[in-house]
Amino acid sequence: MTRQELIKQIREKQSFLCVGLDTDLDKMPKGLKEIVKKEYEEEEMTFGMLLEFNIRIIDATAPYCVAYKPNLAFYEAYGMEGIAAFEGTIEYLQENYPNHLIIADAKRGDIGNTSKMYAKTFFENYNVDALTVAPYMGEDSVTPFLGYDGKWVVLLALTSNKGSHDFQLTTISKNEEGGTSSERRLFEEVILKSQEWGNDENMMYVVGATQGKMFEDIRKVAPTHFLLVPGVGAQGGSLEEVCKYGMIDDCGLLVNSSRGIIYASNEKDFAEVAGQKAKELQEQMAAILKK
Amino acid sequence: MTRQELIKQIREKQSFLCVGLDTDLDKMPKGLKEIVKKEYEEEEMTFGMLLEFNIRIIDATAPYCVAYKPNLAFYEAYGMEGIAAFEGTIEYLQENYPNHLIIADAKRGDIGNTSKMYAKTFFENYNVDALTVAPYMGEDSVTPFLGYDGKWVVLLALTSNKGSHDFQLTTISKNEEGGTSSERRLFEEVILKSQEWGNDENMMYVVGATQGKMFEDIRKVAPTHFLLVPGVGAQGGSLEEVCKYGMIDDCGLLVNSSRGIIYASNEKDFAEVAGQKAKELQEQMAAILKK
Repeated sequence: MTRQELIKQIREKQSFLCVGLDTDLDKMPKGLKEIVKKEYEEEEMTFGMLLEFNIRIIDATAPYCVAYKPNLAFYEAYGMEGIAAFEGTIEYLQENYPNHLIIADAKRGDIGNTSKMYAKTFFENYNVDALTVAPYMGEDSVTPFLGYDGKWVVLLALTSNKGSHDFQLTTISKNEEGGTSSERRLFEEVILKSQEWGNDENMMYVVGATQGKMFEDIRKVAPTHFLLVPGVGAQGGSLEEVCKYGMIDDCGLLVNSSRGIIYASNEKDFAEVAGQKAKELQEQMAAILKK
Repeated sequence: MTRQELIKQIREKQSFLCVGLDTDLDKMPKGLKEIVKKEYEEEEMTFGMLLEFNIRIIDATAPYCVAYKPNLAFYEAYGMEGIAAFEGTIEYLQENYPNHLIIADAKRGDIGNTSKMYAKTFFENYNVDALTVAPYMGEDSVTPFLGYDGKWVVLLALTSNKGSHDFQLTTISKNEEGGTSSERRLFEEVILKSQEWGNDENMMYVVGATQGKMFEDIRKVAPTHFLLVPGVGAQGGSLEEVCKYGMIDDCGLLVNSSRGIIYASNEKDFAEVAGQKAKELQEQMAAILKK
């Protein structure tokens, strides 16, 4: 999906919501097991539970969001059945909701020839639209993901967790050409340096909603890039603050909510309630977009 | 595997070699396909090729190495069959070579509750001994991997690739308590900071063999930790230089070779030649250990 297509979706739906599919067997709602039992063999119950939960969440939330973000950690934890459920979810989205951006949240990154293998996996085999990538290993770990038309690298910049303070916020000093030196923080260096490799049509940055006013600083170094913003809801980030400091003319934001939507109810009405929660966020977003 | 058990293996075998199982279908040796065809169904040929290649490489190299390091990127690239071959390889090692350390090279790392899922996958389900972890997201992304007896986090510090220069070698300035400030490079900060989370019995660091004299600097901040050293062979690192600057009384090194061993021949004698290459490295290591 190109930048223009993404912006078109945001305008049409009046939403920049991304629903995080962090699907955890320990949090499945009441009643789902009985439904799945009727349709799946006993040896594929894990696969069936994960996939059927996702399908119901997707059908209920699709009108209110523009993107889905399954986190691979949750699927890998269930071995082959989990991976199959991830694949099934991607296929279901591609067949039924081809205008939704699919972000595989896998935080990959390795030396050049190995990152190429990951790029093949996610952009050719799974054919997702975007992949989260870790920047620590530098240029050759990131560029193999940038050679695909309409695909996106979502590079970790300033994450939503407490550990973001350990390295991302440390001050680094650079000796510039001409003998002057400048100071910036590591996340700013990641954003600036990576713009030598990609641009605002094939690269986004992860910036946690919990970082609040930091969005002002982010926009100084990434004025036009889309930002993927986790941390609204369960992690305590504020949608208003993110938009106040991070929104640009083209919107430039994809705000993710996972637990706050998909586990809003663990009763039989879980999909309906997830849809309501997504709708509430979409309405808040529509109001902000109108301003 | 505990530190003492690892050191015992190194002393008994006079080797600190780790064989990297970066198994790539495009590089399979002549003749293997015909062998695999006889034992596997047509729809599981990919699984069969990857697993049978690994088994032959393992049997030929096991006397000369103390560790194996399959890189997940190569297995994920072949979907479910690839993951099954990774699982099969781990099981084969655990059943036949229980004294070899198994390092899953996956470079994972996410916010705390998500890293917990990855820890479960690798340390409970696959039950490998060690996992490579990316440090960018800080403490809560790393500590979930540290709570397992006899398991290891292998944290990326100074990698073997060109991109290591982009962020790992940047100078950071820290304001210390008491008002003094100190300067160090990011990889040194990663090593120092992470020692607040783990110790030399549950944490190693990745330091590329291509970094040469940098091992002196590494030993100033990590005097007793084991280092996992990729980049000898195909990437151009020197075993002598790594040992000169990086070796400690307890050895403290696991030197990895992947392509230089497993693809040394693409003829029918591939396993035999891999064994010879491993033996050559082991003999060089034995000579160094004697000094």
